[in-house]
Amino acid sequence: MIFQPLGKRVLVQRLEEATTTASGIIIPDNAKEKPSQGTVISVSTEVENVATGDVVVFGKYAGNELTIDGKSYLVIETDDLFGILKK
Amino acid sequence: MIFQPLGKRVLVQRLEEATTTASGIIIPDNAKEKPSQGTVISVSTEVENVATGDVVVFGKYAGNELTIDGKSYLVIETDDLFGILKK
Amino acid sequence: MIFQPLGKRVLVQRLEEATTTASGIIIPDNAKEKPSQGTVISVSTEVENVATGDVVVFGKYAGNELTIDGKSYLVIETDDLFGILKK
Amino acid sequence: MIFQPLGKRVLVQRLEEATTTASGIIIPDNAKEKPSQGTVISVSTEVENVATGDVVVFGKYAGNELTIDGKSYLVIETDDLFGILKK
Amino acid sequence: MIFQPLGKRVLVQRLEEATTTASGIIIPDNAKEKPSQGTVISVSTEVENVATGDVVVFGKYAGNELTIDGKSYLVIETDDLFGILKK
Amino acid sequence: MIFQPLGKRVLVQRLEEATTTASGIIIPDNAKEKPSQGTVISVSTEVENVATGDVVVFGKYAGNELTIDGKSYLVIETDDLFGILKK
Amino acid sequence: MIFQPLGKRVLVQRLEEATTTASGIIIPDNAKEKPSQGTVISVSTEVENVATGDVVVFGKYAGNELTIDGKSYLVIETDDLFGILKK
Repeated sequence: MIFQPLGKRVLVQRLEEATTTASGIIIPDNAKEKPSQGTVISVSTEVENVATGDVVVFGKYAGNELTIDGKSYLVIETDDLFGILKK
Repeated sequence: MIFQPLGKRVLVQRLEEATTTASGIIIPDNAKEKPSQGTVISVSTEVENVATGDVVVFGKYAGNELTIDGKSYLVIETDDLFGILKK
Repeated sequence: MIFQPLGKRVLVQRLEEATTTASGIIIPDNAKEKPSQGTVISVSTEVENVATGDVVVFGKYAGNELTIDGKSYLVIETDDLFGILKK
Repeated sequence: MIFQPLGKRVLVQRLEEATTTASGIIIPDNAKEKPSQGTVISVSTEVENVATGDVVVFGKYAGNELTIDGKSYLVIETDDLFGILKK
Repeated sequence: MIFQPLGKRVLVQRLEEATTTASGIIIPDNAKEKPSQGTVISVSTEVENVATGDVVVFGKYAGNELTIDGKSYLVIETDDLFGILKK
Repeated sequence: MIFQPLGKRVLVQRLEEATTTASGIIIPDNAKEKPSQGTVISVSTEVENVATGDVVVFGKYAGNELTIDGKSYLVIETDDLFGILKK
Repeated sequence: MIFQPLGKRVLVQRLEEATTTASGIIIPDNAKEKPSQGTVISVSTEVENVATGDVVVFGKYAGNELTIDGKSYLVIETDDLFGILKK
């Protein structure tokens, strides 16, 4: 089952907080909005600056959750993506 | 009786939550806005990215309900459609 | 006496709720905004997607009421029209 | 003394409610915004769809009152004019 | 000392209320926003529809007061000018 | 150390209130927003209608304060500048 | 690990307040929004007026914090950058 985002949206699979602490972004424990990260699974045809496979960083409360074939995802507007993380 | 949406709107027949749990999207039970899904019945002439028959995903409180010939539908603005679900 | 709407507005004669229950749209009894329907009597020269005689569906609280020659009408912005009902 | 409206505004002389009840629009007594009517006295050079002498219908609380040479008028933005009444 | 307004603004010298009552606009004593009038002293280079010397009418709370060489003025955005009063 | 404003902003050195009372603008002591004045020190490359050295007038609460090499300045958006004061 | 900002955003490494007090901008201790400064680490491809290495000044509460490889950064929209500090 494939989810094709509409508008300026991408489908993202959130990376676990535990993983990020070990190797990459560490979310500081304070009152500010804490960014999260995830892998882009699919993008709308209207999206140009992000591609499938990109690891994106976004605000903790960005997007809407949905579950496809038992897996959890986020649908996020590209304006809510802070940037792409490259190794 | 045919309903022709105006503006950037589509007419959608909501899929039952029970059906979705079995085969497709499972709505997680938490406090975030829970997406729903439905089948597009008709689209406005101003709509380009969605077609009749598409299974669309949208926020639980998106759109306005109306009943035609005894059946319930939703009229939804395309900006409120998160994406299309393809099998 | 003729009323010529200005801006993106149409003049609509509301169809009675009793009539609609029998033959067409049935307004469900719940807390969501309940659409109404009516017949377009005249349109502004700025309106392109709706014509005189169209049966339009709109939110229950859309438009402004006015009475011409003793009959009640609604002046509605076309953005507030959900769609056209065709038999 | 002449008042030349600026922006998308017109100067309107309000018709008395009593007059309107007899011959034309009757304002229903309910909680919704009640339209009023008046005669256009002068228009801004930026106004295209309304002319001097037109009888216009507008919301009861539209515009700003001002008095010129002892007579009361309303300065109304054309977006707040619902339409033109023709006999 | 000369004040050259910036943006779509004009410098206005307010006419006294007492003067206006005698010869021109009379501000009615009610709860609605009461227009005031004044003479345009200087205009921004971005202003096209108002000129120095025009007597303009505006809302009582429009603009910002400032004093130049001991005289009080108002700096008003042209969108807040209702019209020009001509004798 | 040089501060180059970004966007439609200018760097302003505020003139003391005492000075202004003596020779130029006097800020009236009332409840309305009280304009202040200052000298433009540097402008963004996006700014066209104000130049270095101009004495500008602005609302008392406009801009953001910052200190460079021990001197206090304001960074102000040009939309918040009411005008230029010329002698 | 590289962070490529998206939209009109830049990645900034905040300069310590202690450093700034000694050599450059001193943040006054009052109730107004206090600007901070930092070095631009990377910029989005959509950003034109700021470059990597620029020392930028911004509001104390601008941007979102994130940590990459154990270092703290801010992702800031360029509209929230007041200017560039040059020595």
